[in-house]
Amino acid sequence: MGFQAPKGTRDLFPPEMATLRRIESAWRNASVNAGFDEIEGPTFEHLDLYTVKSGEGIVSELFSFKRAGGDVDYALRPEFTPTLARMAAAKGRSLSLPTKWFAIPSHFRAERPQRGRLREFKQWNVDLLGIDNPSADAEVIATAVHALANLGLTHEDVVVRISHREVVVSMLTKAGITPDKLDIALTLLDKREKMSPAVFAEKLAEHDLDAHAFSQFDSEISIEHAELTALQKELKAWGIAEWCTFDFNIVRGLAYYTGIVFEIHERSGAERAIAGGGRYNKLVEMFGGPEVPAAGFGMGDVVLSLVLKDKGLLGDGEELLPTPDVFVVSACDEGDELIASTIATLRSNGIHARRSYKTTRNVGKLLTEAAKVKATFTVILGQELERDCIVIKNMESGEQVELQRDQMLVHITP
Amino acid sequence: MGFQAPKGTRDLFPPEMATLRRIESAWRNASVNAGFDEIEGPTFEHLDLYTVKSGEGIVSELFSFKRAGGDVDYALRPEFTPTLARMAAAKGRSLSLPTKWFAIPSHFRAERPQRGRLREFKQWNVDLLGIDNPSADAEVIATAVHALANLGLTHEDVVVRISHREVVVSMLTKAGITPDKLDIALTLLDKREKMSPAVFAEKLAEHDLDAHAFSQFDSEISIEHAELTALQKELKAWGIAEWCTFDFNIVRGLAYYTGIVFEIHERSGAERAIAGGGRYNKLVEMFGGPEVPAAGFGMGDVVLSLVLKDKGLLGDGEELLPTPDVFVVSACDEGDELIASTIATLRSNGIHARRSYKTTRNVGKLLTEAAKVKATFTVILGQELERDCIVIKNMESGEQVELQRDQMLVHITP
Repeated sequence: MGFQAPKGTRDLFPPEMATLRRIESAWRNASVNAGFDEIEGPTFEHLDLYTVKSGEGIVSELFSFKRAGGDVDYALRPEFTPTLARMAAAKGRSLSLPTKWFAIPSHFRAERPQRGRLREFKQWNVDLLGIDNPSADAEVIATAVHALANLGLTHEDVVVRISHREVVVSMLTKAGITPDKLDIALTLLDKREKMSPAVFAEKLAEHDLDAHAFSQFDSEISIEHAELTALQKELKAWGIAEWCTFDFNIVRGLAYYTGIVFEIHERSGAERAIAGGGRYNKLVEMFGGPEVPAAGFGMGDVVLSLVLKDKGLLGDGEELLPTPDVFVVSACDEGDELIASTIATLRSNGIHARRSYKTTRNVGKLLTEAAKVKATFTVILGQELERDCIVIKNMESGEQVELQRDQMLVHITP
Repeated sequence: MGFQAPKGTRDLFPPEMATLRRIESAWRNASVNAGFDEIEGPTFEHLDLYTVKSGEGIVSELFSFKRAGGDVDYALRPEFTPTLARMAAAKGRSLSLPTKWFAIPSHFRAERPQRGRLREFKQWNVDLLGIDNPSADAEVIATAVHALANLGLTHEDVVVRISHREVVVSMLTKAGITPDKLDIALTLLDKREKMSPAVFAEKLAEHDLDAHAFSQFDSEISIEHAELTALQKELKAWGIAEWCTFDFNIVRGLAYYTGIVFEIHERSGAERAIAGGGRYNKLVEMFGGPEVPAAGFGMGDVVLSLVLKDKGLLGDGEELLPTPDVFVVSACDEGDELIASTIATLRSNGIHARRSYKTTRNVGKLLTEAAKVKATFTVILGQELERDCIVIKNMESGEQVELQRDQMLVHITP
């Protein structure tokens, strides 16, 4: 009999968990330093929280279920924004604006697992509610960039590709795309990079779209739009202009963005998008709240980890595991009697203390074990206990001192 | 239209989230200081991971589901131990022993929500694998106690009630309970405290159990068992004897404990159990791994929070929210131009920096805002910019200094 983790999910053993915690910690530090407060919502929501925005089409991408004997439809959270909008809407008029929230929960997609895409993953969500101004979009983008910089990435490694829904729509319209064809035109634009020019032309023909309109779109589109020029200035002020580029192939999902949209990619185009976000000024309203302008993004751990590994910025995680301040070993009967109380004293004083569980009294072997777990100090409970003394060895310098047992804490916490 | 969180789940706004993080942080510190490494498993597992141990009866207590179009049964994790055992089993003979793991994931129960019991909750799991010795049980219990002490609880607030599966079974048998009645006798023993003596007598009669046998059990049971007397000595060595008591009404679930079992309760009996655990030497084997002795416990956040609140040890969470090191305000046009770059500089240097989003230039009002968010310093971008200077106000002392703009970081990070 052998049980395995469900397809597309992960068992995180200590090194992998330490790696995830390192990423989460970069996310959390960037959020807190930027004045965002952490929130969390349920891991599953009512199914209609997701269909109201995205339509019934989304159901096949969700893990949905009922309680045994119950008749309410639930779904595992595929993204955080509907929960955020619901929570903001629940506060109603009492929501003090601006509100700056972040969250780092697990998300779930019932898709086929593939490189960069799992069925369960962690995603960092950052949202700034209440400010309808490119300075807010820039602040949100800067928060994402700060986290990536904290992880060791530079503007040579990644790029923030920025577009604007309104600019793209008005330019497509100007180029002759009729309103009934706009959704499919945006969808194809979004996917254009992943196709060859020939396949793209085929797709256009298939949907009765004018290839010439897209050439006109490409040649005439520009950032001459009040919000984009304002954003460009803000990005410079935030010191992240060289991380950013304008790229009107970026569309994002159709369901809720209303203005600026962006994706963060590995600069050479390796891997999927590291993050995606933008402005969604109608969303809180859509979930029953007041009209609240909002901008935000989501950044998953899976693609980010791949990019960090590609760049040599993530080890195997062993190097991130906590190492003990003190390793306690016993080399005699009296030591055996005292080992538990010695460790208890250390731990109660906030010290990371481990012991050898071996029964050997060979101090050499015990010190080898202490070195292996990378202890800072080793406390040796040996024959010196006859004089109520212990030996403390500094594992880096090799220096060994004998001192009264009740002086242990003084020596270890200088 | 109004959406709500699913019944029995929580929306954690910033104060509630900060409260949860405080509890998690006490759990994590106690774990790391005791040499446990963090792991995580999938939020959902194959359904049969739970039925193999607990039987089909558990299915109604689970949220179970299939992927749309898929035929594999999954269930949201109701407890962590099966995942832990599966992960240990997957390592097989390469699992280095002892292995000390902890986890702090979300768990799910499809039960009726009530005080102390939700459908989604966080649970701290601590497991020490590879040592079949009461010293390991004591270490595990001490780790739980250290976390509770970190949260401000004392042995006057809570008690660890310890029993031993083998002792209870042998004493029930000695008192005349036949093997076919043992399971129901243990179940009733477990529930006895929650019933009046009259109801308990009724239940015994209903199951054809001899009331006299239970009187004999009560009067004759004692800790005169090698493991319990050894444990008692260890608990003293760990300095937690006064937190602990032996109580043979503690049974725990029937499915997998093999020796010492324990529960942690509010001392006066308020609320449900704060934690429960014990020794389960067969579990890793049950999930296809080698025979590995193990001891551990689970502690949920819901009952613990109630107890901490009852004792006045948890505020409303507002006091736990991060406050900014620096609040930046602008009082002139040039300040408006510089506010983004000033904040970007601070944040890139690891400083928690916020800004006023207000358009007022009334410095008094802006300083009131800075005081309201409890900033340590306020940076004022005002007329002094003409001399390339800024004003920094220490919000605690009230002291205000004017200095060159490029000296800001030096002044703020002493």
